[in-house]
Amino acid sequence: MPAKAATELSAIALLERLLGSQLARAVETGIGDDAAVIRLGKRRVVWTIDASVEGVHFDRRWLSLEDVGWRSFQAAASDLAAMGARPIAALAGLVLPKGSTEKEITALGRGQADAARSLACPLIGGNISRGGELGVTTTLLGEVVRPILRSGARAGHELWLVGDVGLAHAGLELLRRGAAQRLSAAERVCVEAWRRPRALIAEGVRLRGRARAALDVSDGLSGDAARLASASSVRLILEERPLRSVLGPALQKAAKKLGEDPLELALLGGEDYALLAAGPKNSRPRGARRVGRIERGRGVFLEPAAGGRSVPLGPGFDHLV
Amino acid sequence: MPAKAATELSAIALLERLLGSQLARAVETGIGDDAAVIRLGKRRVVWTIDASVEGVHFDRRWLSLEDVGWRSFQAAASDLAAMGARPIAALAGLVLPKGSTEKEITALGRGQADAARSLACPLIGGNISRGGELGVTTTLLGEVVRPILRSGARAGHELWLVGDVGLAHAGLELLRRGAAQRLSAAERVCVEAWRRPRALIAEGVRLRGRARAALDVSDGLSGDAARLASASSVRLILEERPLRSVLGPALQKAAKKLGEDPLELALLGGEDYALLAAGPKNSRPRGARRVGRIERGRGVFLEPAAGGRSVPLGPGFDHLV
Repeated sequence: MPAKAATELSAIALLERLLGSQLARAVETGIGDDAAVIRLGKRRVVWTIDASVEGVHFDRRWLSLEDVGWRSFQAAASDLAAMGARPIAALAGLVLPKGSTEKEITALGRGQADAARSLACPLIGGNISRGGELGVTTTLLGEVVRPILRSGARAGHELWLVGDVGLAHAGLELLRRGAAQRLSAAERVCVEAWRRPRALIAEGVRLRGRARAALDVSDGLSGDAARLASASSVRLILEERPLRSVLGPALQKAAKKLGEDPLELALLGGEDYALLAAGPKNSRPRGARRVGRIERGRGVFLEPAAGGRSVPLGPGFDHLV
Repeated sequence: MPAKAATELSAIALLERLLGSQLARAVETGIGDDAAVIRLGKRRVVWTIDASVEGVHFDRRWLSLEDVGWRSFQAAASDLAAMGARPIAALAGLVLPKGSTEKEITALGRGQADAARSLACPLIGGNISRGGELGVTTTLLGEVVRPILRSGARAGHELWLVGDVGLAHAGLELLRRGAAQRLSAAERVCVEAWRRPRALIAEGVRLRGRARAALDVSDGLSGDAARLASASSVRLILEERPLRSVLGPALQKAAKKLGEDPLELALLGGEDYALLAAGPKNSRPRGARRVGRIERGRGVFLEPAAGGRSVPLGPGFDHLV
């Protein structure tokens, strides 16, 4: 029998089984949410780790090393935003290919430092080692009194989107198709969304006490919606009409140029770092836009604007396959 | 002018300069010690991140994936041991090459889980991503009332060694020279020291209130001694006579087989995860063995057993060059 290649889901399941017995008293939430939650005395701390690897998470054809430093930091911080946490501090593990120059390290570090400053989250240390491919692994600690988990969505809740989806993927596609030299203003918005994402920390804090569940949308709305539905054991209905209405003019224009449906870009495109949340209608905060609802059941469905039967959406991006 | 290749020292200096202004009030110790120290309410937390990358930190010819998981975890935990901290919990970022099998992931995870259990430090979550080479980055949080820093060594202190040095390097050399099939008992001790190191958590805790400075010896005694001397702005004298006397029979025998001086293996060989500490003579704890002394001045010197002038020791292993 050939060895079975792991998918991200199977790998996580295997590791959960191996480690499940270790979840100690101090640990409130372990594997399976955006970040782990631990109790230290009277305080709750949320804690995340996130890797950015060259050739997988970024491509230096279209990103400076400053961009790489910035993005890796924001991507990690986004996990805290999804829990409604404020960052306390960060550490970074750099893996540098042989012959990396001081100029390159300075650019990378400057991007990280700028991101850290933008989030008021000091980068206080880390580790440097050599490797065949450039990699940045960032770990952040954050604080929150009551973290927003993925598992709290209930039938009857509204589904909220905070921030934009689809822009980053459109931006990357424009670059891939060689449009970098002659970008319109709308297209530049997309490229910047991809190149310089922002973790929505303040927006996540505004969800506190209002959203009952949240996660960050880093792998496309469809796939991350499926994660929320699964963690909460509910059915999640994305409603085409309100969803299309929150897709802004920049995405519309870029999609037209790309010959794609903006809705597809939103559903399948990744690296947005928007927040998807669920909560009672009367507690929706400023900045959160209703894009669907939660029902009893399982899975993620798209309810067509034209009416008719809802369409089941497939699973999202798998980080291993 | 050609771009200047970075050394580990120059890279750290560059990043310190970029990030120095970010060290916030909550942060007591940032870049430059074994782990960062932050204050959370009344508690102090120490926090470290450490990477293990295939082809740099490990070679699968001589290590099973269980060994890789074990070692990466212990190596990261060793940073906490050096500060006298007890681990609270850990997260791991796995970078897995395409086509990694479920069997491989299970082996890696089992090694991590075993190490976590051995240190009473639950591995509570993390992140999986794809990459060209296998990598494990581990971050640990630990607690300690008063962390032992690298910077507290003073003239007049004794220099203490806790744990063994040289064994791991001897073990690796034996494997490199193809001796794996016919190892003597002494040689097996060396190979096991390399394959299955242990972070000296309990020993580090015993240094609390006794050692004034400590670090873990992961890059060879000579280089790590230089780091301690530099952080404390002192001169560190390794005394050949007591140092040789703490090198056990396993190292003596393996060195003989390898045709090497056991002292050289101890000074230059890495991956031991012993602890090097400094403190007043009357506070030396059980298990700490005197191997030298601290004086005014700079640098690291070896005082020959035969008498005569002390010999300056060169800088240690650089992780980038």
